Amino acid sequence: MNYQSLIATKASRLANAAKERTILDFGARRAHGRDAAIIGVRAAYIGGITGTSLVVAAKKWKIPCIGTMPHKFIQDRPSELQAFREYVESFPHNAILLIDTYDTILGAKNAVTIGKELRKKGYDLRGVRLDSGDMLSLSKKVREILDEAGYKATKIFASSDLDEFRIDDFLSKGAPIDGFGVGTALITGANYNSITKEGGISALNGVYKMVEKIDEMGRSIPKIKTSEDKILLPRRKQVYRKITDCQYVEDLITMWDEKPEGGSLNPLLFPIIREGKLVYNFPTVSEIKKHCLEQQDMLPEKYKDLHEDVSYPVNVSPKLSKMTDELIKKYSRH
Amino acid sequence: MNYQSLIATKASRLANAAKERTILDFGARRAHGRDAAIIGVRAAYIGGITGTSLVVAAKKWKIPCIGTMPHKFIQDRPSELQAFREYVESFPHNAILLIDTYDTILGAKNAVTIGKELRKKGYDLRGVRLDSGDMLSLSKKVREILDEAGYKATKIFASSDLDEFRIDDFLSKGAPIDGFGVGTALITGANYNSITKEGGISALNGVYKMVEKIDEMGRSIPKIKTSEDKILLPRRKQVYRKITDCQYVEDLITMWDEKPEGGSLNPLLFPIIREGKLVYNFPTVSEIKKHCLEQQDMLPEKYKDLHEDVSYPVNVSPKLSKMTDELIKKYSRH
Repeated sequence: MNYQSLIATKASRLANAAKERTILDFGARRAHGRDAAIIGVRAAYIGGITGTSLVVAAKKWKIPCIGTMPHKFIQDRPSELQAFREYVESFPHNAILLIDTYDTILGAKNAVTIGKELRKKGYDLRGVRLDSGDMLSLSKKVREILDEAGYKATKIFASSDLDEFRIDDFLSKGAPIDGFGVGTALITGANYNSITKEGGISALNGVYKMVEKIDEMGRSIPKIKTSEDKILLPRRKQVYRKITDCQYVEDLITMWDEKPEGGSLNPLLFPIIREGKLVYNFPTVSEIKKHCLEQQDMLPEKYKDLHEDVSYPVNVSPKLSKMTDELIKKYSRH
Repeated sequence: MNYQSLIATKASRLANAAKERTILDFGARRAHGRDAAIIGVRAAYIGGITGTSLVVAAKKWKIPCIGTMPHKFIQDRPSELQAFREYVESFPHNAILLIDTYDTILGAKNAVTIGKELRKKGYDLRGVRLDSGDMLSLSKKVREILDEAGYKATKIFASSDLDEFRIDDFLSKGAPIDGFGVGTALITGANYNSITKEGGISALNGVYKMVEKIDEMGRSIPKIKTSEDKILLPRRKQVYRKITDCQYVEDLITMWDEKPEGGSLNPLLFPIIREGKLVYNFPTVSEIKKHCLEQQDMLPEKYKDLHEDVSYPVNVSPKLSKMTDELIKKYSRH
């Protein structure tokens, strides 16, 4: 659960940096094993990416499978041009040609040659992919080559150790890139800025802790932990989100049976299992994604700015604070 | 495979920082899903840790299962003392009491009370665990409490977002800690220094690339990729390790059919499958661990020093360099 939240968050950051552009998952080979790759794709799709190159995950989650081609496909044939030609025989309407195996500029020219051959058959070359070198200057040169040859609709994709910071950097400098393939940084949820080289540990620190016990008489016994710097809030909770003009304002953590005052407070927690029975209809992956993107739209822009360090306000209700203080006093006497 | 190498490497760094002390895996909840937790434990054990608290992984890999107790066990009972008492009923010979739920010093005194009760039954208290607060000063105070009460053999374990840098820091300052539980940093292979706050992306960049093709006549066709900053070395390889006085000196990458000159060159690569047949007897996890630790002993200390940035020399044979240069020239003309 921690892992899925980590990856969905990373995906939302990538999608946000890319603005309306495509983000594809290319991370399978760097995931922490097979399952992490497959589970990670689900979370990444929910968080905001467009599709994945991992066929098994695309089938499992019923999400778009969008790949390009590996270098091996090109190396395996006598020339790049011949490799491109064989590839578009299978994917005439949908080919994204990888043009950096030997020389990106020559690769772009080969792509134009293939584009001409495709047009004779009634197809348009969908795109090219850059995977090495100086992406900013190369994307501009390749765009020029494509435009001059009359391939303005052919998209440029980029990949190669990208993250939200590099994507933001390319776009702010005007790189004409239409889509990004992101691997390692996405599927490992990297807490690392490839521009400033600053980072932290890549993990979400959610933990299971005991906060309440119900005795034989059905009475609530609040539970706490008073370890230095690791104090728990006691009792079962509800979290209320204050929303004004379709924008999040703040969250308020309360005890589950509190009724906080104030309008437009939306409870976020609801039962999944009650007395051993499933009481919830799980939505599909597409429904979850739709909900997630709607929620992201309601988070004010300042919290999404990669260059700002602004924390969204999360407060604790006065009743819950009071109970916490009382329990700390009580247990410190133990 | 990348993931297992990443975790084994991290484990070896932790074990090295801990010197002869115990390192336990506590990482399951932060792993990238269920499989990553289980696979990660295998790699961590091979790399140098002593055991894991993840029961399913310990059973699967037949390795030591060593846990302590969760805070919940203590919170769930009317008092810490009563919780300790119930715990040692089940584990009289093997109890490691978690003493920080409410107050570490009071917890240490409760542990002494339990130690006395155990001695009457003929057992000795195995250990206590610290999980919060200033570990350096707390470990010294707790050691004093245990020693003064006559529990010199009772071990002190520490956990709480530890990594090799914090372990090294504690030990260099004389913290009397006998063993460490490491979670997030181990199971995610964190490339992060919790002392200096410096880090990088947590991944090993091994990739599959095409380097050679055999034609219909059985002739070798070397393959290359000349992408900027991402050049491949062509052909199948052998890696020779030069070892002098039981210490690694350098590695030499050659073509597989080269016979490099010079004594004490040990080839590292050998066939696993030949013509579709398995030709290798896989060792057990314990055998792999034994081999791994022997190899670690042969790596000179300067490469293991956390505060030095020294790279182990890996060279390319003159023949392979020459072929690479020739192929780059050839393919740049494409």
